[in-house]
Amino acid sequence: MGGDHGPRVTLAACRRFLDEHPDARLLLVGLPEALQSFTHERAQAIHASEVVTMEDPVEIALRRKKDSSMRVAIQQVKEGTAAAVVSAGNTGALMAIARYILKTLDGIDRPAIAGQIPNALGGSTTVLDLGANVDCTELHLLQFAIMGSALDSVLKGREQPTVGLLNIGAEAIKGSEVIKKAGELLHHAGDSGSINFVGNVEGNDIFKGTVDIVVCDGFVGNVALKTGEGLASMVSSFLKQEFARNPWTKFAALMAYPVLSAFKKRLDHRRYNGAALLGLRGLVFKSHGSADEVAFGQALNRAYDAARNNLLDRVRHRIASAAPFLLPASPATERAPTPVSHP
Amino acid sequence: MGGDHGPRVTLAACRRFLDEHPDARLLLVGLPEALQSFTHERAQAIHASEVVTMEDPVEIALRRKKDSSMRVAIQQVKEGTAAAVVSAGNTGALMAIARYILKTLDGIDRPAIAGQIPNALGGSTTVLDLGANVDCTELHLLQFAIMGSALDSVLKGREQPTVGLLNIGAEAIKGSEVIKKAGELLHHAGDSGSINFVGNVEGNDIFKGTVDIVVCDGFVGNVALKTGEGLASMVSSFLKQEFARNPWTKFAALMAYPVLSAFKKRLDHRRYNGAALLGLRGLVFKSHGSADEVAFGQALNRAYDAARNNLLDRVRHRIASAAPFLLPASPATERAPTPVSHP
Repeated sequence: MGGDHGPRVTLAACRRFLDEHPDARLLLVGLPEALQSFTHERAQAIHASEVVTMEDPVEIALRRKKDSSMRVAIQQVKEGTAAAVVSAGNTGALMAIARYILKTLDGIDRPAIAGQIPNALGGSTTVLDLGANVDCTELHLLQFAIMGSALDSVLKGREQPTVGLLNIGAEAIKGSEVIKKAGELLHHAGDSGSINFVGNVEGNDIFKGTVDIVVCDGFVGNVALKTGEGLASMVSSFLKQEFARNPWTKFAALMAYPVLSAFKKRLDHRRYNGAALLGLRGLVFKSHGSADEVAFGQALNRAYDAARNNLLDRVRHRIASAAPFLLPASPATERAPTPVSHP
Repeated sequence: MGGDHGPRVTLAACRRFLDEHPDARLLLVGLPEALQSFTHERAQAIHASEVVTMEDPVEIALRRKKDSSMRVAIQQVKEGTAAAVVSAGNTGALMAIARYILKTLDGIDRPAIAGQIPNALGGSTTVLDLGANVDCTELHLLQFAIMGSALDSVLKGREQPTVGLLNIGAEAIKGSEVIKKAGELLHHAGDSGSINFVGNVEGNDIFKGTVDIVVCDGFVGNVALKTGEGLASMVSSFLKQEFARNPWTKFAALMAYPVLSAFKKRLDHRRYNGAALLGLRGLVFKSHGSADEVAFGQALNRAYDAARNNLLDRVRHRIASAAPFLLPASPATERAPTPVSHP
């Protein structure tokens, strides 16, 4: 039901997804009238009586709309009838309801949003958190590193993906207190082999592809993501303006059309759609609200890959291997110097 | 002496600057051998016996190198023989020495680095802090807003430039505790007329040009700046690669050359060089270390404009107008609810 375009886009993407994945089955959760036109032998409609809107405050979505399509869909994962849930709806509501219904994994204090950002190597960099947690301790950042590593191994087949901690330039005073502590903690976890930590990275490294995974708090991650979107949009509009300036530049644009199309395709944000809500006892993927059919299909693909490759088991396995470092987070500043085992 | 290219670039830029500004005079501070070749009737050499390197830790630059060109240059501002100082050297050292020699202005706890980032309107957005202060209170953010407003009025002739507080998306949980408090404080200051605060902005607004000034802590600002640099560099390399792919695309590149040049010029980072170190009792400008002659010249121009338009007086004036909100910062969380005057 979610996203800017609703079922018109999501159902079209679902049909294509089913065609491309002959072993996949879909549960379509929504208002009866929205789903009635869709029939497929591997799709099943599950009705909900209400919808969480993009404007709904988290409290309303969570406490008042108990039969929302979002909640019913997440419930399918909880009950095991679905392996993963994909939504293009309200991110805050999705996170809150998923957390309430599914609960967090042992060893994880806070779920995080992990997205893909294109890099100069032609692939993408996994960045988390992108906005779920604005104030993070070093322990949260370690948990993000662990979960991001599991995600990267599942989506890209990298067994020991490299992890960088987002920090600021060598020229300036380096990092906040939390970032300094996180650097130490990640180094220890790296030495033990539970993550492949390579050290600090800077904002430009996200696009350079210096590391597979960039870890940061949700405030910084969200600013980096939006800053990138803003610059990409400005560059694209400058390019269009320059090519549209006069008949001669328009002719040049015609000549350069295949090149500009290839260029545009490389930066196509639809290819990077589908963020993972990590740290929950179930797989939840978030599509951008503005996703079109191709983009929403990409989010479905990611959920499919994560389910097929047992992302949850991999996260659990990595948490177990990092258990000595994952003490309860509450008084995060008082981390015991000696490793302590954790369930 | 500073920057990646040293006097070869800085002196060439100085000569051009003097030619373009017939009323300007320059004090060139550096090693005697570096300056001996430069003669101009409006330039005077001032000798220093040592140089702060890009690798020098702040402590070394500050405590050991007491006759560095950087320190001697800043001393000229302190003594009033120079109206402003421009350096392409070590940012951390420049900030520390400037702060030690010049001291901060009354009402300002921490100096900030304010830079220009190009925006879609064809101008630039003033962003601060870009890396001097990693942990900021709401009071520091208000001080940044006040100083940024004074800078914008001087460099761009805007008497009431608009100010936005960098925050994260409406979809996610909004802002940290500090950001929420800063939003309230900036609103109060805006209501009183001491700044023109328009509310929260997101990362993409920096490049949209939604507001004249974007205020954030130095960690977030530095990440945003570097993220933008990384994306710009990736986009430029993708574009080059696509146009260099085969003889046909190379021909297209030739046809599109004037358009691509115009496009490149619009994004030319050299036009935005020259960050202001604000909040000091003297004007200090920082050029990017990699600046070429054009870029360093732009930093000189900014210092010249700031000095000619009495930036310091304007900062002082704005601080005075915001005095009721500028309580001593130490226990920033315990801001008194009633306005209190401040020297």
